[in-house]
Amino acid sequence: MLTNQDVEIVQAPVRELEDGEILIKMVWLQMDAAVRSWLDEGEGYLPAVKIGEPVRGGGMGRVIASKHPDVTVGMWCGGGLPGWQEYAIADGDSPIVNPYPPDWDVLFQLAVISSPAATAYFGLKELGELQPGDSVLVSAAAGSTGSVAVQTALNLGASVVGIAGSDEKCRWVEELGAQACLNRRTDDLAARLKELRPKGFDIYFDNVGGPILDLALRRLAIGGRVVIIGAISMYNQGGRPPGPSNYLNLINRQAKMVGYQGMAYVSRYDEAWNQMWEWKAENKMRYRTEMAHGLENCVDQLNMLFTGGNTGKAMVQLCEDPGPGPY
Amino acid sequence: MLTNQDVEIVQAPVRELEDGEILIKMVWLQMDAAVRSWLDEGEGYLPAVKIGEPVRGGGMGRVIASKHPDVTVGMWCGGGLPGWQEYAIADGDSPIVNPYPPDWDVLFQLAVISSPAATAYFGLKELGELQPGDSVLVSAAAGSTGSVAVQTALNLGASVVGIAGSDEKCRWVEELGAQACLNRRTDDLAARLKELRPKGFDIYFDNVGGPILDLALRRLAIGGRVVIIGAISMYNQGGRPPGPSNYLNLINRQAKMVGYQGMAYVSRYDEAWNQMWEWKAENKMRYRTEMAHGLENCVDQLNMLFTGGNTGKAMVQLCEDPGPGPY
Repeated sequence: MLTNQDVEIVQAPVRELEDGEILIKMVWLQMDAAVRSWLDEGEGYLPAVKIGEPVRGGGMGRVIASKHPDVTVGMWCGGGLPGWQEYAIADGDSPIVNPYPPDWDVLFQLAVISSPAATAYFGLKELGELQPGDSVLVSAAAGSTGSVAVQTALNLGASVVGIAGSDEKCRWVEELGAQACLNRRTDDLAARLKELRPKGFDIYFDNVGGPILDLALRRLAIGGRVVIIGAISMYNQGGRPPGPSNYLNLINRQAKMVGYQGMAYVSRYDEAWNQMWEWKAENKMRYRTEMAHGLENCVDQLNMLFTGGNTGKAMVQLCEDPGPGPY
Repeated sequence: MLTNQDVEIVQAPVRELEDGEILIKMVWLQMDAAVRSWLDEGEGYLPAVKIGEPVRGGGMGRVIASKHPDVTVGMWCGGGLPGWQEYAIADGDSPIVNPYPPDWDVLFQLAVISSPAATAYFGLKELGELQPGDSVLVSAAAGSTGSVAVQTALNLGASVVGIAGSDEKCRWVEELGAQACLNRRTDDLAARLKELRPKGFDIYFDNVGGPILDLALRRLAIGGRVVIIGAISMYNQGGRPPGPSNYLNLINRQAKMVGYQGMAYVSRYDEAWNQMWEWKAENKMRYRTEMAHGLENCVDQLNMLFTGGNTGKAMVQLCEDPGPGPY
């Protein structure tokens, strides 16, 4: 776990903008499990954050100054991965610095579009090869990605069983349309999963790794697909985490285990995003946010992801939305 | 490991044949890793062998008596999975009792066709999605399945690196056409694999599990495929074996891990078999046998698979071929 001793809040003047740059007053930071992994050295898809740099992470704020011709003051902007800071300077030409109109639904953008959308959509549809009628199991189902995955699977015509960490979360997952949601702390998962789907699950959408992945490997249907998007139960273990010892069931079940890496779908993100906005308009994509306030609460809010405290998207609000300006 | 205390050699009279049955004098038994797994209780693709039954396994012998109209004395016959016995009675109508003409190349049949052919062919071509130019890593490369996989990959246009358990085996794998074969007991596998394929392997054909699987997961190319056909290093460990702790690399490498289960390809076996006979005719499919003699050596010969003693197909010869008869 990251602790408050590992990070320091420092004050520094905001430097002058150069041509093409924009200054963003960050309003919300989104807490993603990947944030923790970026702090580890090793072979990730982005280099590790260096000592002295802001903790890397996504967020959204208002453009309060701009030296870029196409990005105007008052727009919303993620600024790439600005990290944990109140003001961020970004290169307006960077392909990952996406500005949005001043009236954009930024919370939907952060909670659903930013990362869960593509992960859930391509993870289920492409890697999971989801077909209408499939039986899908989603772990961490009340979490940010899990709750979008549950609704995506349902919207694509599958039936869903969820696993979550409290009765309250389970109730929400069932409200979203899951046939059942099991409490991983109190339910006998092995028995209940077998009872709910005697023939096993066609897709297991895995966000947690560890014992639940192992259990799901035992409960795969013939031809089943395990979509690995992360291993939230394992990121903080240090050293080499245990692997899924039931992986040999992939043989008996003629099954596969596929890793979801967003980079592979960058050119198709629009497809996922458009679908999510469409589902939102049809009231078929809901979200919750778990909001904390102030930079000093970032560490706790991030850690909540790994202890299962959050329902919906964990975020930190840094200031009130200053509105569309002028400032 | 199976021991000679776990089995007993018993003598019993051969019963009379009923209509439709055939009597086979077994000449060769083939030793497959699956034989060991069939002795465990649990969720396999065939029920566990019961106390009192012959150890289940494949083999080939001469039909010395027949009450089936289409199976004539002198033919070769596998008899399904007759198990470890000198005489086997089989139902001539059973779809898995395949009789062959008296002049059939039975050793090629046992060493290449029986199980390695389909496993190597469909494992590489279908699950591995092998394309000409792909870089393939094969473990247990001097073994029965491994050596067929090495040649199959080469014949399909891939380049191959092997891993085997002795310098002598490595030499043979290189004779088969592998660019290199590493000795898992003496080579620094991690360093050598990185050196040989800096961009990683497109396919890892995994017959062993354990630390080599974990290493291969680290050395996958982007988009790589791990084809799991077994875990010979783990079958004898008892209890739950460790899983591949590097499975999360499936995410970074946009990779997948797929279980090969022969049952899924039964209807297409002919395609693999025809291809193997064709390659044999072109001298592009070679094999070796590791032969022991007599029922009393079956246990040791089977165990050799797990300690890496064999080069090529491990077999036990029960008698001299009595020839095509009449008897």
